[in-house]
Amino acid sequence: MGRKSIIKSTLATVFVLLACYAFFNTFIYPNPLRLEELSLRFDPRGNSLNFPANSGPVKVYMYDLPRKFTYGVIESYAMARGGLKAPVNDVTKLRYPGNQHSAEWYLFADLTRADQSGSPVTRVLDPEEADLFYVPFFSSLSLVVNPIRPASVAGDGLVYSDEEMQEGLIDWLEGQVYWPRNNGWDHVFICQDPNALYKIVDRVKNGVLLVSDLGRLGRDQASLVKDVILPYSHRINTFNGGVGIESRKSLLFFMGNRYRKEGGKIRDLLFQVLENEKDVIIKHGAQSRESRRMASQGMHTSKFCLHPAGDTPSACRLFDAVVSLCVPVIVSDYIELPFEDVIDYRKIAVFIDSNSAVKPGYLVKLLRKISSQRILEFQWELKKVKQYFEYEYPNGTVNEIWRQVSMKLPLIKLMINRDKRLVKRDLTESDCSCLCSNQSGMYTAL
Amino acid sequence: MGRKSIIKSTLATVFVLLACYAFFNTFIYPNPLRLEELSLRFDPRGNSLNFPANSGPVKVYMYDLPRKFTYGVIESYAMARGGLKAPVNDVTKLRYPGNQHSAEWYLFADLTRADQSGSPVTRVLDPEEADLFYVPFFSSLSLVVNPIRPASVAGDGLVYSDEEMQEGLIDWLEGQVYWPRNNGWDHVFICQDPNALYKIVDRVKNGVLLVSDLGRLGRDQASLVKDVILPYSHRINTFNGGVGIESRKSLLFFMGNRYRKEGGKIRDLLFQVLENEKDVIIKHGAQSRESRRMASQGMHTSKFCLHPAGDTPSACRLFDAVVSLCVPVIVSDYIELPFEDVIDYRKIAVFIDSNSAVKPGYLVKLLRKISSQRILEFQWELKKVKQYFEYEYPNGTVNEIWRQVSMKLPLIKLMINRDKRLVKRDLTESDCSCLCSNQSGMYTAL
Repeated sequence: MGRKSIIKSTLATVFVLLACYAFFNTFIYPNPLRLEELSLRFDPRGNSLNFPANSGPVKVYMYDLPRKFTYGVIESYAMARGGLKAPVNDVTKLRYPGNQHSAEWYLFADLTRADQSGSPVTRVLDPEEADLFYVPFFSSLSLVVNPIRPASVAGDGLVYSDEEMQEGLIDWLEGQVYWPRNNGWDHVFICQDPNALYKIVDRVKNGVLLVSDLGRLGRDQASLVKDVILPYSHRINTFNGGVGIESRKSLLFFMGNRYRKEGGKIRDLLFQVLENEKDVIIKHGAQSRESRRMASQGMHTSKFCLHPAGDTPSACRLFDAVVSLCVPVIVSDYIELPFEDVIDYRKIAVFIDSNSAVKPGYLVKLLRKISSQRILEFQWELKKVKQYFEYEYPNGTVNEIWRQVSMKLPLIKLMINRDKRLVKRDLTESDCSCLCSNQSGMYTAL
Repeated sequence: MGRKSIIKSTLATVFVLLACYAFFNTFIYPNPLRLEELSLRFDPRGNSLNFPANSGPVKVYMYDLPRKFTYGVIESYAMARGGLKAPVNDVTKLRYPGNQHSAEWYLFADLTRADQSGSPVTRVLDPEEADLFYVPFFSSLSLVVNPIRPASVAGDGLVYSDEEMQEGLIDWLEGQVYWPRNNGWDHVFICQDPNALYKIVDRVKNGVLLVSDLGRLGRDQASLVKDVILPYSHRINTFNGGVGIESRKSLLFFMGNRYRKEGGKIRDLLFQVLENEKDVIIKHGAQSRESRRMASQGMHTSKFCLHPAGDTPSACRLFDAVVSLCVPVIVSDYIELPFEDVIDYRKIAVFIDSNSAVKPGYLVKLLRKISSQRILEFQWELKKVKQYFEYEYPNGTVNEIWRQVSMKLPLIKLMINRDKRLVKRDLTESDCSCLCSNQSGMYTAL
């Protein structure tokens, strides 16, 4: 059939449809709609008309921040500890200290590497093309540049000030075209340590914040809707053995600081009810190479690993447990968890509310009732999701963080457009769109 | 190079990396991270490991509701108006009355059609495979089955009760396996009329609600985060002419009800300041075929079309204006707009706050100052976005609604998983995640 005859028959069909339409239109109600007409009108090839929203991976522009906000923080950290005598010329000589807040390093390194293939986002070098702007300030490392016990002062005698760095970042941003353009909605900040960026968080709160939890942030500063919960980097070695309980003789393991602030006060109570229980290893210990070695050994040989709240609801111990295939027992009522849209944590962890957990005998009795078969099921699931918590895996944590950031884009664009057309109005309450859970919760999610 | 030698060289690389790692580990801080190491460790082919979230279009299961909730509503509507004497055997004989709330018909018809290609969602016939469950109750038509002035009673003498239908829907849902499973989060309801589902909205509020605006819904019932704002179907004919102002002699056009409730009280005030202005056509008129014809003619020959709030902030007139290439002048301070992530409404409409708009002379003076060039720019943009407001276009409103629904899935999955593991806790305020605008607004967004 030639092109002309297709056009003719199409026109004929259209004419017949229009005639039908006019006919039906004379009945008592106007513009009636019928299924078979619609089926004809719908053209599946319509797909070729592309809406702007369907145009591929989200484009991220990473700001080329002054060196002091990135490599400079590493230098200051090393110099404050005597590991470096003076600033270096070649940044490849600098090593980011491995710590639980090193997501900022991994994201920076990811956007810096030459080959971007395999990433859920596309890095663009022209800010005009960008959907989102990543601000790679090493805010968590900046917070701890000055050691708690200063070993030596930096070579030039200047004391590092994290607060000045934060203010400096804002000053720098205010000189950028793209920062005020959309009221900050399209900017992404990393502040993984609960105190990172504390001085300026109110000024950057419209942005997507990459955080460990919402413990120290106000409800107008951060939320599950706007922000992304990151896992801490695990600090102990990944367990390379398989699923099984033969080599896991201890029922429950915990090693960490017994005394914490705020929600972490539960730790001392848990020590009291657990420290004399059979098959339970619970030890007070601060961060050190030796304690990490002991924790590795303990987590690799226990069935369950306790995860109580710390100063904030989250702690790196949860991720240590996951990579140890040691089933986490979470006693932290206000915890928010990374990537919860793709991870059903009930499959990999036991949740117990704080009030029940501190009742003498309750926790251990509950854990002892869990069958070996059920523990193996937990371990299989842990093995499945482990990749989400490995920052160094090719398709591990870093890719998942970018994917989570990407998914915020439609709401970000909506807020950008909406903000700009809002007119003056008399609001009786603040202008918020919320997602609320109506669940009052259970005593244990097992 | 054979497979074995690749494995060998990979192992060698891994060994070298591990050796380097061990070497660096002996320095003063543990687990240091260096850029070039990371670059080596990252394997772009990692992409082949697919995360579950990357698994293609969202899968929608449409409930096969009892006939009374879909075709039965059309029958009752026709019978109540004497257009049908008795229920029909062949549903293809039924015509859905064309009205501004017919999105429910278009979505139902879309999921019913045989060829699903080109859709942003995939319909699945097995609920086990579904990400989301669509409940195709014709809730807006159900609301108006009984005419305001009853012409005749349905054949069997029974009076149709929308409230009973709503309760019946809940009863039916409660008999389904998938309704309680995820606390309703994964269910999609259409309630485009501001009063549709009013009796049961509290019981379905966890679901994605497809609504015209948020005017009658509480903040715990609906939000921009959870729900989707739909456009009304336009009621007047699309303007098929091109961009231009030669044939548009009137400055401003409005035809509609002068007296409305709530926010719509502004209409009478606008009539007072506009009805004696030169080049302004402002007419009181109720819905009728003749008034639609006159409105078509007026909107096709005016530069600007007034869109004041009605009983709720939205009205179909906005979409009539768009398809007429008549620049909407929006005087509705609390309006929410469809698809605002992909449409920047400042490019297609003029926004004026209510207090300013009712000042004598203000509005007309502002519009007269807008240059012809600027009006043409508005028209070009209107032409570009028109497809979003054409329910019958192959890649028009229906596809965009499904795309918007799809984008809710990550947050829906997060809420489902999170709800199930939440333990008892002492909340001082309700458990909400919000997105708040800090903008106080301007007098006009032009």
